[in-house]
Amino acid sequence: MAQQQRATETKEALINAAAVVFGRQGYRATTLRDITREAAVTQGALYFHFDSKQELAEEIIRRQHTMSSGAGASFLASTESGLSSIVRLSGELAAQVLTQPVVRAGLRLSTESADDLAGAAAAPYRDWIGACRILLERAAAVGETREGLDLDAAAELVISSFTGAQFVSAALTGSEDLLERLERMWPVLLEGFVRDPDHPVLSSTSDLIYQSADRVA
Amino acid sequence: MAQQQRATETKEALINAAAVVFGRQGYRATTLRDITREAAVTQGALYFHFDSKQELAEEIIRRQHTMSSGAGASFLASTESGLSSIVRLSGELAAQVLTQPVVRAGLRLSTESADDLAGAAAAPYRDWIGACRILLERAAAVGETREGLDLDAAAELVISSFTGAQFVSAALTGSEDLLERLERMWPVLLEGFVRDPDHPVLSSTSDLIYQSADRVA
Repeated sequence: MAQQQRATETKEALINAAAVVFGRQGYRATTLRDITREAAVTQGALYFHFDSKQELAEEIIRRQHTMSSGAGASFLASTESGLSSIVRLSGELAAQVLTQPVVRAGLRLSTESADDLAGAAAAPYRDWIGACRILLERAAAVGETREGLDLDAAAELVISSFTGAQFVSAALTGSEDLLERLERMWPVLLEGFVRDPDHPVLSSTSDLIYQSADRVA
Repeated sequence: MAQQQRATETKEALINAAAVVFGRQGYRATTLRDITREAAVTQGALYFHFDSKQELAEEIIRRQHTMSSGAGASFLASTESGLSSIVRLSGELAAQVLTQPVVRAGLRLSTESADDLAGAAAAPYRDWIGACRILLERAAAVGETREGLDLDAAAELVISSFTGAQFVSAALTGSEDLLERLERMWPVLLEGFVRDPDHPVLSSTSDLIYQSADRVA
């Protein structure tokens, strides 16, 4: 029992170390030796849990996916306004990027376009667009969105804008201004979505972003 | 003279080979040997032109930047509607991504967040946001944009959405649907920008994107 406990701890240490190393130097440049060194674990212990670098990377993408989808699911279950939920969801995803090595590494691995990871990398984007589509539908059902808004295109736009804000923020400030960037982004984006130009969500985007971000951080 | 001509050709061959290899496997995983092999050139010839991998990567980012800014500048010089220019610019940038190895590699290098490339990588984003800001100002000056549109935030949103569309398209379809993704994106994005909901740009985004894309391709 103590031995199984130790095995689980070693496995978690390996995943966390791999997240740190992949997040720092990417998939192709990372060796299993880099990971065992970071985890202070033997090669033998690594091979007990994982067959290959690819298996570790897929596990990290899977965990990132679970964490991100977990955030999505909790908003899908809430009874709050659809538009407010989407803004809060973006704050929570941003906070995960800023504070969780597994999420940061998972996103990096997802964009490395290594062919052997392609399948695993597509799933989170598909899920985020899907969750966003449901929240927009909910907003449309209660008349929050303007007549004729293309919900599929709007859901894709939200996810593209959020993904792009991350990359631009990473390039310009090493991600330090990600939350401020979302604060500037949302009012302009929502103006194109709302039916009522005085919808309260327009003036509360900052609060919604930081409430979620604080909860994660 | 013939010798100088040959040296120039070798240098160009090295840059194009480096673009192909960096585009395929990223910065850290690429060795100078990978590049000389791809270019079918000796190590000595490489060192005659470039001191290091970093110097080659910076040259590629610089060229990508020149090509992207070149597209921006030609639109800044045109007398066309500001909003139409922005849409056409996105079509041209997308076509560069799809057809030019230097642009594809430059973008990849820009997102690798290797610390030694950080300065070079930030410049294109800053320039794109700046060019977009000028085009939006032009649109605002002739009353194309709605009252109270935050032009700084809108310029950032355009560049984030475009950048994100690229990454989502790369993850989901290996970039094959990038132009279709822009086609769906623009009408929704522009709805939040225009003063007149019947502005002709809203129904002509597909034409604007493909005109530019065809010109590059």
